[in-house]
Amino acid sequence: MDLYDYLPSGNGYKARLLLALTARSCRYHPVDILRGESRSAAFLALNPDGRIPLLVLDDGRRLAQSNAILFHLAQGTRFWPVDAFLQAEILQWLFFEQYSHEPNIATARYWLSIRGTPLTHCEQESLVQKQRAGHAALAVMEQRLAAAPWLVGEGCSIADLGLYAYTHVAADGGFALDAYPSIRSWCARIEALPGFVRIDTLPSCVANA
Amino acid sequence: MDLYDYLPSGNGYKARLLLALTARSCRYHPVDILRGESRSAAFLALNPDGRIPLLVLDDGRRLAQSNAILFHLAQGTRFWPVDAFLQAEILQWLFFEQYSHEPNIATARYWLSIRGTPLTHCEQESLVQKQRAGHAALAVMEQRLAAAPWLVGEGCSIADLGLYAYTHVAADGGFALDAYPSIRSWCARIEALPGFVRIDTLPSCVANA
Repeated sequence: MDLYDYLPSGNGYKARLLLALTARSCRYHPVDILRGESRSAAFLALNPDGRIPLLVLDDGRRLAQSNAILFHLAQGTRFWPVDAFLQAEILQWLFFEQYSHEPNIATARYWLSIRGTPLTHCEQESLVQKQRAGHAALAVMEQRLAAAPWLVGEGCSIADLGLYAYTHVAADGGFALDAYPSIRSWCARIEALPGFVRIDTLPSCVANA
Repeated sequence: MDLYDYLPSGNGYKARLLLALTARSCRYHPVDILRGESRSAAFLALNPDGRIPLLVLDDGRRLAQSNAILFHLAQGTRFWPVDAFLQAEILQWLFFEQYSHEPNIATARYWLSIRGTPLTHCEQESLVQKQRAGHAALAVMEQRLAAAPWLVGEGCSIADLGLYAYTHVAADGGFALDAYPSIRSWCARIEALPGFVRIDTLPSCVANA
């Protein structure tokens, strides 16, 4: 398999983390989104949506969208349970991640810690909304994790890995996690999983192409 | 089952449309989001994320997020194929819908046709970005649908139903579909499916609770 990705991306990290936790190997293609490499003609021919991560199977089939890649890579592993309602609950959390969590927490992180240019007046106004909505999303997670060790069912699933990606670096977007003790304990449980890698480190099973 | 929903919502419509196409019955609970009913204490006790649609099974289990509800309701139907890679491709399109399509096209529709109050200066600026990003999302769909009748595989799946919900009313958000002939043909194919219902009509299998 080939993974097209940008190391600071939490969305790309989801795939890297699951590959590491399941010890699956993959060739790695860095794509510098800040230099527009995800919008190049060559990359758009691979993914018309112009986004990383992108997974390319050995037979050439391509899959975009980080959470769809998690679904694919998790088949047959302990991170995707067989019960269909648990699966639906996992997808509920992953859609929540892309709709209520990532656009607030990851975009704030991008503006404040990655892009490297000052915010416009309207981005400043938007940031206030994103802070409020991002904290609302964290509160939804805290409520669940105060009652159970994992987001769905009895064990760690791709719901946890998908939400961990931008939650554990939420401080980069101005979201202190002090008020969320259950989220912090859950982060520690994920970081203790055998094979865990950090967002800034390429797993040993993933080698530059 | 019980469905909590708001009739003009494209996200709610996804569930209603699949129920109609599969002739499954459901009790209907209207939630007026413009009056804040999805943020009431009673509703937040059902869905801490404070959003419709919400599906409640007869045993009390609850499921939020429109595309996770589609996944649950489609199990065992022709709208969810058995091949695992086709399933991953369907989820790719549904995550694309919630990330690249809905926040642009549905939010523009909400601002221009539903909310009923003028746009602020920064919303006007944001609308320009949403028009550009929404057209980019429609172009990705057009490219696929120019080459194939359905978004994934050989038949209509929940990828098509999920994307149809806000695409067919994109004009309400200022997105003319004239430049997208393959999208318009695809809309007509969906509207010809046996059991199809419009967004503004409660299916006969769905009755007010």
